[in-house]
Amino acid sequence: MTPFPTAPDKHALERGEALAPRFNGDGLVVAIAQHADTGEILMLAWMNDTALALTLETGVAHYFSRSRNALWKKGETSGQLQIVTELRVDCDQDAVLLKVRPQGDGGACHVGFRSCFYRVWDDGRLVERD
Amino acid sequence: MTPFPTAPDKHALERGEALAPRFNGDGLVVAIAQHADTGEILMLAWMNDTALALTLETGVAHYFSRSRNALWKKGETSGQLQIVTELRVDCDQDAVLLKVRPQGDGGACHVGFRSCFYRVWDDGRLVERD
Repeated sequence: MTPFPTAPDKHALERGEALAPRFNGDGLVVAIAQHADTGEILMLAWMNDTALALTLETGVAHYFSRSRNALWKKGETSGQLQIVTELRVDCDQDAVLLKVRPQGDGGACHVGFRSCFYRVWDDGRLVERD
Repeated sequence: MTPFPTAPDKHALERGEALAPRFNGDGLVVAIAQHADTGEILMLAWMNDTALALTLETGVAHYFSRSRNALWKKGETSGQLQIVTELRVDCDQDAVLLKVRPQGDGGACHVGFRSCFYRVWDDGRLVERD
């Protein structure tokens, strides 16, 4: 059972006080993790209702790993826990924005960069630029 | 025919110079639009291969509207065109980050706020906070 309501209409969805996420067919919403202090986008991931509820309850980012098909407490093994300082939702409530402070070594990406978005399109190719 | 290659292996996907987006089953990748000057997250949308190719070619953000099932040049009717100053891709190339300068009135959200993420979770409810 999802702990979240469904918005009864467009106005409630867009302007309401109720967090009524529009989970997709797989039961997921997109989540953007942005560094609370620098504004840098760290990663993009997905949340199911449990991940979102746990994030709100604990103040630590939880996601849903689509590759492992399992709840994913970010940083549980890497130490890169994400303390959530603010949670926002977008107009049609199918995307969540987390402002976070990464713990451990301060990184977020499994490849070893601080942010997953470490490659810039530059004159026809991708260039690594942290 | 997609104008983009498929990465031959994990290393090419994660560290390669080739933009090889991993479009989902619907042929889409997620795109985050971040204000180039303020770092504010403006919106989250989707791109198909044509939208991504046009964005790279023109330097103006193009998306794919899932509700209209059509290519969407953001701002074509509202004037809120997004000039792209930088395009990044994430480690596994299923998400794109655009740094943009919104034109027109400087906004990005159809509800009338500058950013689509105008609601903050605050003590058990959503509060509008621009």
